[in-house]
Amino acid sequence: MEPRSIRVKEVGPRDGLQNEAVFVDTNDKIAWINQLSSTGLSYIEITSFVHPKWIPALADAVRVAQGIERVPGVTYAALVPNARGLERALAANVDEVSIFLSASEAHNRSNINKTIQETLPVLGETAHDALAAGKSVRGYVSTVFGCPYEGKVPVENVIRVTEALFEMGVSEVSLGDTIGVANPRQVQEVLEVLLGRFEAKRLAMHFHDTRGMAMANVLTSLAMGMTTFDSSIGGLGGCPYAPGASGNLATDDLLYMLDGMGMKTGIDTEKLREAACFIQEKIGRPLPSHNMQVCQA
Amino acid sequence: MEPRSIRVKEVGPRDGLQNEAVFVDTNDKIAWINQLSSTGLSYIEITSFVHPKWIPALADAVRVAQGIERVPGVTYAALVPNARGLERALAANVDEVSIFLSASEAHNRSNINKTIQETLPVLGETAHDALAAGKSVRGYVSTVFGCPYEGKVPVENVIRVTEALFEMGVSEVSLGDTIGVANPRQVQEVLEVLLGRFEAKRLAMHFHDTRGMAMANVLTSLAMGMTTFDSSIGGLGGCPYAPGASGNLATDDLLYMLDGMGMKTGIDTEKLREAACFIQEKIGRPLPSHNMQVCQA
Repeated sequence: MEPRSIRVKEVGPRDGLQNEAVFVDTNDKIAWINQLSSTGLSYIEITSFVHPKWIPALADAVRVAQGIERVPGVTYAALVPNARGLERALAANVDEVSIFLSASEAHNRSNINKTIQETLPVLGETAHDALAAGKSVRGYVSTVFGCPYEGKVPVENVIRVTEALFEMGVSEVSLGDTIGVANPRQVQEVLEVLLGRFEAKRLAMHFHDTRGMAMANVLTSLAMGMTTFDSSIGGLGGCPYAPGASGNLATDDLLYMLDGMGMKTGIDTEKLREAACFIQEKIGRPLPSHNMQVCQA
Repeated sequence: MEPRSIRVKEVGPRDGLQNEAVFVDTNDKIAWINQLSSTGLSYIEITSFVHPKWIPALADAVRVAQGIERVPGVTYAALVPNARGLERALAANVDEVSIFLSASEAHNRSNINKTIQETLPVLGETAHDALAAGKSVRGYVSTVFGCPYEGKVPVENVIRVTEALFEMGVSEVSLGDTIGVANPRQVQEVLEVLLGRFEAKRLAMHFHDTRGMAMANVLTSLAMGMTTFDSSIGGLGGCPYAPGASGNLATDDLLYMLDGMGMKTGIDTEKLREAACFIQEKIGRPLPSHNMQVCQA
């Protein structure tokens, strides 16, 4: 495999903390994100502007976004559900907003309380306003490889919502294995279809490790030409659908593989580990990644 | 990828229990192995005849081997260090004995208290006597991908000891990533060399998940034509070199991937899960595999 540049997008401060039981003090979040900013990461999803009543763990979104240092070369992104959330995100001057929906109706309804058809105009408005304000927009598609309610998700559903997102002006779509059910063969089959319609560089992979498949799925994605992967430092954030089960792909475990395979990420693993140890102390439980467990041994 | 038959060799009762803190009562070991015998597994490593002073967890090797039901079609194997251990193994009527050494001198000396050169005649004698008694012999090579003391291990070392084992009459050599440091690129490179000298069907892969690489390494091995993998049910057995860190590749996680990819193993995952729940209760800690965590959620 040719040496390649791989972009790792750190979602720990949002997708990680969102799924942790403990509320991390705002000043600690800020200090932690500042540490992440010095690791060589070029993309950090710092918070979510979904209404705090839904995600109390990130109720301090504005204060975090305003409090962190902005390191040149790092894109600071945040999840935004709609135009109202966007107002707060723009006031807090994030660089990029991430809009989201599901590939399956049942999950979309459960997560957003709307059908996919009802969701699209909301996202379209949000994307339009964000782009007009000079921000870039990312799209998240959940349940690409399986839905906790519907089971199998036809790839046509994924194509439909992905196309809609690109039409709204998003620069990249992150394909999520929300419940961590994908296996490498399925990943290959789905990507074969999607790469027939979309360029690899406009897609990102967002795997969950609930069944232990994330790293193998990343490996398959690399072989298919994918170069952007979302991960959460230390494996922060459990699985909301199976409490106690593992959730996010761990950034440090991902880096162990990418570095070992000679791929370039620009990330200093030692500094990343320091940042992992910092947040581990704040959440009060051992971070679940394999590489953190080795370090603690 | 073509649908393929994959042989999963269950090492939980030996490599798993060997690394657990709790001594599992002999009757429980017997009941558990009997459950494993009914899952469709065709190979179970039931114990070790290394001297009980070194592995107290398996001090009841003879009673276990004599107490279990012998299900037709299942090979019951045990680790054997030398001719003395072989006597006990033959008296207990195991089907296959596994002899072992390391690809690195430092690990071999630490583990066996001999140089590799001193070890070979001991293994040769053991293999000879076992074959004469009508048993089959398997060879384990540790530290194929890295040594906890020497770091990198030249593949020539692996070739040397593997050739020696085949010359002794072993039918298969299991290549071990003892400290779980291998990455997929390294696995590919090492297998490219080894498969230039040995047939894939005479080799097995024994990955450890200490750094989260085991499943990706299995995937690479499958792509290289490997069809035999060692694993431990539920991920039983931590890493002796990094207490608290993960160790053995989990059988249930491995099966999730193999089944999802359409490979045939002959194993009933439901029955396997029941056996996992049984031993989990006996060891008094949650089994670490991803799929066991999901089931417990």
